[in-house]
Amino acid sequence: MSGKQVTGDPIRVALLGCGVVGSSVATMLTTHADDLSARVGAPLELVGVAVRRLDKDRSDLPVDPALFTTDAADLVTKADVVIEVIGGIDPARDLILSAMKHGASVVTANKALLAEDGPTLYAAADTAGVDLYYEAAVAGAIPILRPIRESLAGDDVRRVLGIVNGTTNFVLDQMDTSGAGLQEVVEEAQALGYAEADPTADVEGFDAAAKAAILASLAFHTRVSGAQVHREGITEVTAADIQAAKDMGCVVKLLAICERSGEGVEEGISVRVHPAMIPRSHPLASVRDAYNAVFVEASAAGRLMFYGKGAGGDPTASAVLGDVVAVARHKVGGGRGPGESAYADLPVRDMGQSLTRYHISIDVADLPGVLAQVATVFAAHDVSIETVRQQVTTGSRANLIVVTHQAPDRALAATVEALAELPIVDAVTSVMRVEGE
Amino acid sequence: MSGKQVTGDPIRVALLGCGVVGSSVATMLTTHADDLSARVGAPLELVGVAVRRLDKDRSDLPVDPALFTTDAADLVTKADVVIEVIGGIDPARDLILSAMKHGASVVTANKALLAEDGPTLYAAADTAGVDLYYEAAVAGAIPILRPIRESLAGDDVRRVLGIVNGTTNFVLDQMDTSGAGLQEVVEEAQALGYAEADPTADVEGFDAAAKAAILASLAFHTRVSGAQVHREGITEVTAADIQAAKDMGCVVKLLAICERSGEGVEEGISVRVHPAMIPRSHPLASVRDAYNAVFVEASAAGRLMFYGKGAGGDPTASAVLGDVVAVARHKVGGGRGPGESAYADLPVRDMGQSLTRYHISIDVADLPGVLAQVATVFAAHDVSIETVRQQVTTGSRANLIVVTHQAPDRALAATVEALAELPIVDAVTSVMRVEGE
Repeated sequence: MSGKQVTGDPIRVALLGCGVVGSSVATMLTTHADDLSARVGAPLELVGVAVRRLDKDRSDLPVDPALFTTDAADLVTKADVVIEVIGGIDPARDLILSAMKHGASVVTANKALLAEDGPTLYAAADTAGVDLYYEAAVAGAIPILRPIRESLAGDDVRRVLGIVNGTTNFVLDQMDTSGAGLQEVVEEAQALGYAEADPTADVEGFDAAAKAAILASLAFHTRVSGAQVHREGITEVTAADIQAAKDMGCVVKLLAICERSGEGVEEGISVRVHPAMIPRSHPLASVRDAYNAVFVEASAAGRLMFYGKGAGGDPTASAVLGDVVAVARHKVGGGRGPGESAYADLPVRDMGQSLTRYHISIDVADLPGVLAQVATVFAAHDVSIETVRQQVTTGSRANLIVVTHQAPDRALAATVEALAELPIVDAVTSVMRVEGE
Repeated sequence: MSGKQVTGDPIRVALLGCGVVGSSVATMLTTHADDLSARVGAPLELVGVAVRRLDKDRSDLPVDPALFTTDAADLVTKADVVIEVIGGIDPARDLILSAMKHGASVVTANKALLAEDGPTLYAAADTAGVDLYYEAAVAGAIPILRPIRESLAGDDVRRVLGIVNGTTNFVLDQMDTSGAGLQEVVEEAQALGYAEADPTADVEGFDAAAKAAILASLAFHTRVSGAQVHREGITEVTAADIQAAKDMGCVVKLLAICERSGEGVEEGISVRVHPAMIPRSHPLASVRDAYNAVFVEASAAGRLMFYGKGAGGDPTASAVLGDVVAVARHKVGGGRGPGESAYADLPVRDMGQSLTRYHISIDVADLPGVLAQVATVFAAHDVSIETVRQQVTTGSRANLIVVTHQAPDRALAATVEALAELPIVDAVTSVMRVEGE
């Protein structure tokens, strides 16, 4: 970049953490200093980088070695802007709270902390009159929080549907392409560096659930914690599920879904993470590998999509530094950015009340009256069937594929249980929700 | 929407214009008043709607009839926020300048005015210490200016590639699907309401050029006016061009292109609007009908895409009201949003210097040595050939399809001229730029 020199009191920036993201942030802060300063309207000065160990070789970073410190608690008291990219709950939370108490605005990429204890942080930012920005916490480089919070502030968001975890998207993508099983593909992802040694946070959906909580909070002006998000990971997804989706012209994705109940229904929101079939024609279906994408539906704007890299040092650093420029501008020019807003305070529905659709595959006896028995079970649970496809498999057995209309998840789950108990049913071979209509 | 009552001094909002967009804005301001007020932190009060004629029936709008006035000049002196959706240069410019002089922040959707005389407006906003926001001026409901200006403020935008005019996209899409000629499809678009009675601004690329100027200005922190944008509309696009693109696995789109020169080249930017072939696998290729999409490439963030409705009353009103909430928040909480930034002041290259690629189809004599003669012309202009495809058409004639590597547009255009003068060349049957690599 090329920039003009800017004079005036510098904005002191402290960086907490110097891993993959922190290294990118430190590098960009240093090499793009002139441009960043021109955009802020004052020089940005990196005053310290808190690290766990001083003895690690960081000579590849264009950062004055004297800036590295292990005393993060002291560093946060001496900055105007604190960037937190340590991750995790402790000590990140205490450092952020201390930074704000000492008057610093905070930029963080910490989705886990925001989803677990966001309200404490929002309240501390309000008390201190500082900014708390966290664009990098969801979908890496993709500008998604600012558009929802600001660009759509005059509209009425109805639904957010996102692929927000690159690891699981890579795994499901590989399963779809190669027909391999989950375990095999996860090991491949680990070998390629797309999955952690302990992939639990990704494959069990914890990471996506934290992001869903943040998206829902902003979209619906309602506090949603990670614990309130219904969460199912991809560990139960089988090669049979992937094949069933293919047969339907669909693809299986791990989706973060934030929905507001429709017209004529009691006000409320549903926030959930689970694998789902979406039609191959849906724009989210073509999101491959470690890319992320978020679909947003709003009353006036209609359908919007945001697409880009969901992780990685430089993409995440791009989002972090966009926030740094914004909060530094406020330090120079006065004012604060829009903070958290929880005025709508809508009830978060449990999963049983959430409306969804099921794709159910069952092996049954190939006898007259079987379809009638099956249909009776659906009717008894007030679940309406959209399509049934029946095919004889071997001799006296048949396979039934049922796709339902929308119904409360509780009724759908109860239907599946009741089907499994029917004497004419051998096995329920695949159950998966269908989204993206 | 549902909202909580907010008390305090109201923010007075004046609306200039009550056409398609203005009607949507007036309706949303009225019906969503509680929500908007909660998001602003103060009540929003619509204090007047300036219209050309008072005798038009507007009883379908949920707006107090006493608020309509023909005295826009008076109205702008009595508001904290002025929304301008009249369009055109005059009287919009004077009204905006007067509004700012009287202390109002301005939200406008007026791409033509911004591209023609943006610097006058930016300077007036600075002098008055007010905000000038214009998200709705480019790509309707799609949040694109705020992401470029704010989310990517810490990054280095290299390229913006957008489909930003729905009318021409509809026309090219129809030509691609039906094989029909331009004139026929434009008439169909007019009948469907997708094209104006006078479609000049759209089909000649003026509308897209104004948007390209705005995008380039924000992306590169450099003032670019509409007049500096190289502009070619779609009027020269023939059914043969569309077919040639199909044969290449491409589709023809009218693109707004803003590029920064690459490493090792003198700093500068290229801003242009012209039809171009892009591969069908490119995400922009699947943008259909009146939808818009903008691709952004930045050094750290990588490739991002933003997709949504590019026009229409409600989508545009969504963008307008997002800006209204932002500038009203600043009125309540102090501070201003990021204004225009022209610090980088990069030179705008003329089209001749811009790097692009050509797809050229020529009918030639089917004689030995023809390819050598043709290749010599390319070499003489320092244009490197990527692929040549030769096919015999009838008897002694052949057709050559040449796709070049990247070269300055001047050299490419000169090559085409020289080819046309070769005795062995019957005709240059199609010339089109290739983008989206």
